[in-house]
Amino acid sequence: MPDRVVGPEIERLIQLLARLPGYGPRSARRAALHLMRKREELLSPLADAMRVAKERIVTCESCGSVDTRSPCSICGDNRRDAAQLVIVETVGDLWALERAGVVKGRYHVLGGTLSPLDGVGPADLNLQGLVTRVAEGEVREVIIAVNATVDGQTTAHYVTDMLAHLGVRVTRLAHGVPVGGELDYLDEGTLAAAIRSRTAF
Amino acid sequence: MPDRVVGPEIERLIQLLARLPGYGPRSARRAALHLMRKREELLSPLADAMRVAKERIVTCESCGSVDTRSPCSICGDNRRDAAQLVIVETVGDLWALERAGVVKGRYHVLGGTLSPLDGVGPADLNLQGLVTRVAEGEVREVIIAVNATVDGQTTAHYVTDMLAHLGVRVTRLAHGVPVGGELDYLDEGTLAAAIRSRTAF
Repeated sequence: MPDRVVGPEIERLIQLLARLPGYGPRSARRAALHLMRKREELLSPLADAMRVAKERIVTCESCGSVDTRSPCSICGDNRRDAAQLVIVETVGDLWALERAGVVKGRYHVLGGTLSPLDGVGPADLNLQGLVTRVAEGEVREVIIAVNATVDGQTTAHYVTDMLAHLGVRVTRLAHGVPVGGELDYLDEGTLAAAIRSRTAF
Repeated sequence: MPDRVVGPEIERLIQLLARLPGYGPRSARRAALHLMRKREELLSPLADAMRVAKERIVTCESCGSVDTRSPCSICGDNRRDAAQLVIVETVGDLWALERAGVVKGRYHVLGGTLSPLDGVGPADLNLQGLVTRVAEGEVREVIIAVNATVDGQTTAHYVTDMLAHLGVRVTRLAHGVPVGGELDYLDEGTLAAAIRSRTAF
């Protein structure tokens, strides 16, 4: 929008909002108008929440997740099973598993996957911290919960090799039919894996 | 997400982001992760932009638009044609017309439409200010650019009646086929209006 229509402050707000995921110039304008209409109820608290987040968010020195404390809420929770460590690519994956509520142990966030084509090597991932944690001796099982992509599987193999001499059990997520999924819409690889890993009924 | 996964500060950020238009709980989490990854490039400047907006945004005392000054950038622009006044429902509509770059004059933002069912009467709209502005005598033409909805058209008629004794020319936007539109997808009302208002080729 040309300068003359709104002041540069509003223009800048729109430009920054347009960089949020799922937003473009049009939705950013809509969001800016919405925020300006809801100045007290939304704009003001959101600005405060962002400022607080900016000041207080830290990367957990233990698992690599983000939180407002380090060790994070999960690493600092003594009710967690210290024998189980779940390896994920990103904090978003960690949150997804937490919503499922099935992990009793703690996590380790790699921060991505090995990807030679993109120039991501072992030194770019949070791998040294993983070896250190496992070598401390409390962990009995490492569950590799990386994405079922080529890069994810490459990373899974690398991690398995790296942990081989530490005497922990290394497992990975099961492949199969998603709950609620229809066979007709699944790819051959998933169906083949589901048949191979079939279980007693 | 349960409290134990992230601190309350991140939880609150996610809850507020979920109230942005087009966002829900899932996209808000994604946006929060994106912001936390881009702490310096996005989170920090966006928090600042919101704080500045919150502190400096005012409603223009003349036209009812929002800007960081009053009179707003448009009302304060002396190159604008004082004889032309375009009436819109919302600030979003004003911005849309400005992007089209066809309005030489200024605007008047009603802040909605008359809607008896929703309890919106004349006193809830920025109508008194409109009469005052037109009565000052500089305005020669009032272009009613409200939405082509039932409430919009009711409001258009009300405004026309209200301005009848002030000796200004009152016009409204043309109805017709949108540029780039396909006839097959248009409703009968639009097609009928396009035929009725046909122009020489």
